[in-house]
Amino acid sequence: MSTEGKVITCKAAIAWEANKPLVIEDIEVQPPQKGEVRVKILYTGVCHTDSYTLSGKDPEGIFPCILGHEGGGIVESIGEGVTSVKVGDHVIPCYIPECGSCKFCTSNKTNLCSKIRITQGRGQMPDGTTRFKCKGKEIFHFMGTSTFSQYTVLPEISCCIVREDAPLDKVCLLGCGITTGYGAAKITAKVDEGSTVAIFGLGAVGLSVAQGAVDCGAKRIIGIDTNESKFVSGKEFGCTEFINPSKDLPEGKNIQQHLVDITDGGVDYSFECIGNVNVMRAALECCHKGWGVSTIVGVAPAGAEISTRPFQLVTGRVWKGSAFGGVKSRTQLPSIIDKYMDKKLKVDEYITFTYPLEEINTAFDVMHEGKSLRSVVNL
Amino acid sequence: MSTEGKVITCKAAIAWEANKPLVIEDIEVQPPQKGEVRVKILYTGVCHTDSYTLSGKDPEGIFPCILGHEGGGIVESIGEGVTSVKVGDHVIPCYIPECGSCKFCTSNKTNLCSKIRITQGRGQMPDGTTRFKCKGKEIFHFMGTSTFSQYTVLPEISCCIVREDAPLDKVCLLGCGITTGYGAAKITAKVDEGSTVAIFGLGAVGLSVAQGAVDCGAKRIIGIDTNESKFVSGKEFGCTEFINPSKDLPEGKNIQQHLVDITDGGVDYSFECIGNVNVMRAALECCHKGWGVSTIVGVAPAGAEISTRPFQLVTGRVWKGSAFGGVKSRTQLPSIIDKYMDKKLKVDEYITFTYPLEEINTAFDVMHEGKSLRSVVNL
Repeated sequence: MSTEGKVITCKAAIAWEANKPLVIEDIEVQPPQKGEVRVKILYTGVCHTDSYTLSGKDPEGIFPCILGHEGGGIVESIGEGVTSVKVGDHVIPCYIPECGSCKFCTSNKTNLCSKIRITQGRGQMPDGTTRFKCKGKEIFHFMGTSTFSQYTVLPEISCCIVREDAPLDKVCLLGCGITTGYGAAKITAKVDEGSTVAIFGLGAVGLSVAQGAVDCGAKRIIGIDTNESKFVSGKEFGCTEFINPSKDLPEGKNIQQHLVDITDGGVDYSFECIGNVNVMRAALECCHKGWGVSTIVGVAPAGAEISTRPFQLVTGRVWKGSAFGGVKSRTQLPSIIDKYMDKKLKVDEYITFTYPLEEINTAFDVMHEGKSLRSVVNL
Repeated sequence: MSTEGKVITCKAAIAWEANKPLVIEDIEVQPPQKGEVRVKILYTGVCHTDSYTLSGKDPEGIFPCILGHEGGGIVESIGEGVTSVKVGDHVIPCYIPECGSCKFCTSNKTNLCSKIRITQGRGQMPDGTTRFKCKGKEIFHFMGTSTFSQYTVLPEISCCIVREDAPLDKVCLLGCGITTGYGAAKITAKVDEGSTVAIFGLGAVGLSVAQGAVDCGAKRIIGIDTNESKFVSGKEFGCTEFINPSKDLPEGKNIQQHLVDITDGGVDYSFECIGNVNVMRAALECCHKGWGVSTIVGVAPAGAEISTRPFQLVTGRVWKGSAFGGVKSRTQLPSIIDKYMDKKLKVDEYITFTYPLEEINTAFDVMHEGKSLRSVVNL
């Protein structure tokens, strides 16, 4: 019996309030409205950004909501006027949409489509309302994706169509972390062949920077983390050497000075994949005078500020940042999926745990304990 | 009678100590040593950097010294092994040399030749000694140029050869400020055709950014200064509109918010030409999300730091800096001189006063009073 046009009742993990475990509930999901798509989510990753918002520290966090933004699913039904997505399409929900017509999309300089930014930030669909209800209460969307639900509703422009032979339990991870790191190296920084790269933080994002740097032909890829257990996967993903700044630094040297020393003047490219403003400074200052480019990928706590002496920039270092790796979600992400299908991009290797929806809080726990690269939740 | 190989006695303006007026003295200038050139300086500009070092606030300032780094002169004699410069050549002494062979010169990514950086920073010639004496005392060089002297000694690699039909009393100014601003727009930021530009500070450097932006085809060039007398020359040099942030801001808005408002989201390029770290922040934050590029050109006080929220970079703004406009002093500066000779670059228009060497302190006074764009001193 078709569910098209009807309210669907299904399971979802609700974040009722900040800093409390998610609760699995029966929710009602409204049919997609004009320009919207309803998607049956099959798999979702769990990312630090979900945890950040759940912690209550995200000033834009709105509760109750359904978190989750690394999903993979199949289109169940489409709303009025939807032309680019059809029922049965495999899709990855994308928190940065691509409308193709706004000032940002047409600039060809950025992936930051602004079409639905305001309502998305408010936990709403583009028309200013929501599609989720639980126990009679309105539940807010999150990042325009809300993949911690068996069904979600997305704006059409937030759907990346995925080739059907791509396994959704793997490529769901391309909805955030892997693409973010890989794109930061390939698209934002445009790492040069033969160059030296420093990566601060060897989580899923940092390891994906390493993959991107390898792909660009970097010669020396220095992985930096205080958790040495990450050096094993670091090596697997392409790092050529490692520094544990909590014990490998010569006396009186900070990490940036040490990196400058061992690289004859500094690295060509650095990436901050932690979200710590002090590390962001180190990442800039370890860059080579004249041309070093430092890219901020990590998300810092609200209100935190980066700083440095302006001399660092006047002498030729460049400070930039990257969101979703600079990747346009509908037109560029499919080629990254192709890379994976061609075995030129590792994805399976990030998955340390899989859980059923009922155990989603465990996925958060292992992430906080530093035990997981990525957990995939089976909805 | 040839002076080659002999000590020359001539006049120079000596900075005996910090924060005291310069004193015109008779000095002895040694012959050029290996790889060096002795130049008869005919004209020199006076720049804020000379004043900064004279003030004692420059931690690298060494006294007594001969300041000056915007000069024009004629080669009097050459030292052993000098092949690229000959007696009689017209030259501009350049504080960033171009050896053509160091890691920086061969990178094709920067103009920051490092060949003689250490000795230059110590006020010495590359062999670690000095060529100036006065009253039996050793006098230090400054920025490798020391143009406040009738004769100076330069490393061969610091000499930009100037076509002989170019008037040295004008093109001497290309030894610093004009080239710095013009190159920051053309080479460092690479301003796009049709773009919107904000320039903070309309001194000689800021006005030269305007010229560079015009040359790049910028559509809207917003000049920002608290001294409205600068808006007249601002217009002449290409600014299309002006803001006095001390009185033109809507209530409750800072300059960056106001610029974002009047440019539909921010400027494409901004330039800080003052040396104030708070203005540097404003210059970054007035840039358009997704692609705005902010270039720091001004020199901040020692120890001052820039800061911003990393979100500014993660959402696509780029923070960079420029020294001598990214211009390679020996291979690229001649083409800027050609621009001037072809009447495609204003230089004469910067000269508000000319003084004989004896009145060089007056040139500093009018600069401090904001009355001059540039004074040219006739030696």
